[in-house]
Amino acid sequence: MTEHDRLWYPGPTEVSEPVLRAMSGAMIGHRGSDFPVLYKRIVEKLRTLLETKGRIFLVTSSATGVMEASVRNCAAKRVLSATCGAFSERWAEIAKANGKEVDVLAVEWGKAIKPEQVDAALSKGKYDALTLVHNETSTGVMNPLEEISQVMRKYPDVCFLVDAVSSMAGVRIAPEAWGIDVCLAGTQKCFALPPGLTVAYVSEKALRRASEVQNRGAYIDFVEYAKFDDKGQTPTTPSISHLYALDAQMDRMVKEGIPNRFKRHQAMAERSRAWAKEHFDLYAERGYESVTLTTILNNKGTDIASLLKTLKSKHHVSMGDGYGKLKEKTFRIGHMGDWTPADLTQLLGWMDEALGFGK
Amino acid sequence: MTEHDRLWYPGPTEVSEPVLRAMSGAMIGHRGSDFPVLYKRIVEKLRTLLETKGRIFLVTSSATGVMEASVRNCAAKRVLSATCGAFSERWAEIAKANGKEVDVLAVEWGKAIKPEQVDAALSKGKYDALTLVHNETSTGVMNPLEEISQVMRKYPDVCFLVDAVSSMAGVRIAPEAWGIDVCLAGTQKCFALPPGLTVAYVSEKALRRASEVQNRGAYIDFVEYAKFDDKGQTPTTPSISHLYALDAQMDRMVKEGIPNRFKRHQAMAERSRAWAKEHFDLYAERGYESVTLTTILNNKGTDIASLLKTLKSKHHVSMGDGYGKLKEKTFRIGHMGDWTPADLTQLLGWMDEALGFGK
Repeated sequence: MTEHDRLWYPGPTEVSEPVLRAMSGAMIGHRGSDFPVLYKRIVEKLRTLLETKGRIFLVTSSATGVMEASVRNCAAKRVLSATCGAFSERWAEIAKANGKEVDVLAVEWGKAIKPEQVDAALSKGKYDALTLVHNETSTGVMNPLEEISQVMRKYPDVCFLVDAVSSMAGVRIAPEAWGIDVCLAGTQKCFALPPGLTVAYVSEKALRRASEVQNRGAYIDFVEYAKFDDKGQTPTTPSISHLYALDAQMDRMVKEGIPNRFKRHQAMAERSRAWAKEHFDLYAERGYESVTLTTILNNKGTDIASLLKTLKSKHHVSMGDGYGKLKEKTFRIGHMGDWTPADLTQLLGWMDEALGFGK
Repeated sequence: MTEHDRLWYPGPTEVSEPVLRAMSGAMIGHRGSDFPVLYKRIVEKLRTLLETKGRIFLVTSSATGVMEASVRNCAAKRVLSATCGAFSERWAEIAKANGKEVDVLAVEWGKAIKPEQVDAALSKGKYDALTLVHNETSTGVMNPLEEISQVMRKYPDVCFLVDAVSSMAGVRIAPEAWGIDVCLAGTQKCFALPPGLTVAYVSEKALRRASEVQNRGAYIDFVEYAKFDDKGQTPTTPSISHLYALDAQMDRMVKEGIPNRFKRHQAMAERSRAWAKEHFDLYAERGYESVTLTTILNNKGTDIASLLKTLKSKHHVSMGDGYGKLKEKTFRIGHMGDWTPADLTQLLGWMDEALGFGK
């Protein structure tokens, strides 16, 4: 690999050499006999990761495409969007841009969405879809997905749509057991692949809903996806290169051991939080801190732009500043994908040096 | 490159080693300072190819995504879909799946759409968008795009939406001079890149229309694309790998000379047609044969499945059978992208051998 800036963004994250090499595999036809073999092999590995025997779709688009598709396919009546940061707010906007009626269950940025809040909002009986961002990449809050899923059992007519963009493959998610209807993730986060592909678990309930919903679009029509999935194909020409990379990366995941992968992410989160609390503070509500990224509250008025510049020029590292309205107030470390606690220790050392800590 | 079946499909086509190598470049952040440099460099090269100073969007999706986006962004009233084969018929279905009112101007499969037919249909004044597939990949017909564009000047309120999926970068297209409003292509055809990216010229008229149209969606919203284009960015995380490959391939195109590239495609088309006429016949109407692929009428009742099997097993070559309802009746050679007349001569020799010709 040539010298380049290593990515400690909260996605896109650093991609390893073996995965980059897999991106350059020679093409095969997506309607030829080799394709279903590749497709089914990948889906099986993803089923292991997500603890399901259900449908998993491989979509050539960024995650936004499947966030849009989820509401188009699964919401006929009215959408409730639970929001606690930039990406969850964006999902509400996406639903509106597709002509959906949307209400927002908004909690303050930095706070988590609680099961009882979801319960109270849904109990009005107005909704047939809930959008929830598991891990808010802007605020560094990880919402209590499993607990919220308990509440969702009371609402069998509500499709439970989950953006797990920056958590899937970094923490345990069991969408089938938890009653999630769509659980989606872009591959440039905890999967540590180049961006360009989205993985989505889609329940039978979501498919039944889609089959009844009008104007659900053509490019990411879940009904079509299921039809082609039965043949081991995608409805349109997929990014074969990304499938090669995902295939290779899933093997590396299995080799590490999926529970070990989750433990590694947990260890990095603890290290990152400890550093943040020692020198600054965490932006996220206590008990709901993200496992895959840390949003650090810049309570010292540190010149973050200068810190990032030093890290880039001196150590060839790119890290995240604050997102949107948190730009000056926070900065973010994405400790996800293939990074290790040892890598993180090195990064934190460079940050100490750049900030003059521990002198 | 490892041994693999060479692709003579009418797309996805064979991808060269340098382009595959470019797919494995290390990642950069799409909001970092390096990205706009890459983005703008690619757009400039595409502007040269398409003879325009206008907007060109780089969309992470298969071409279907942008076919859908075109009607969502540009049609408010009623769509006229000119159809002459499987892909043009599909565009009409895509528009319907997005809740659009659609009429079809259907000509028989194998025939081309004529300017006077378009004129007659549009003169009813019912439409604000026309969808036209330049090169029908199913029938091997290349519609007279420049002539149709002359007629379109009479209808300034109709957005002219052109699928140039299997023609762009293989034959000359000047969307701005010809008054085309959206001209789109997947990169796995004449660009000879892996599938997963779509290139789209979008006119100012299309952007004005988009700004007035409701429910145009979020993932491929032209208004958002233009906003980010001004910054040298895409609205959502793009497939960086495909951008690297496109960047490299555009350099190779310039090195060959774009007019030379078009001449090479023309030379391959003539050779392929001569072979087809000697042994079988052409499916396309005379004078409207595609320059980038040949659909051969199987007027001898030849066992095409067996021919394709022999080519695959003996020469590691994958070629196209007939598409959809033409499956048994035709077969297709895709002579596009980086293939040369010499390569085609070799392929035709293998076909002669497999079919027992010239013995």
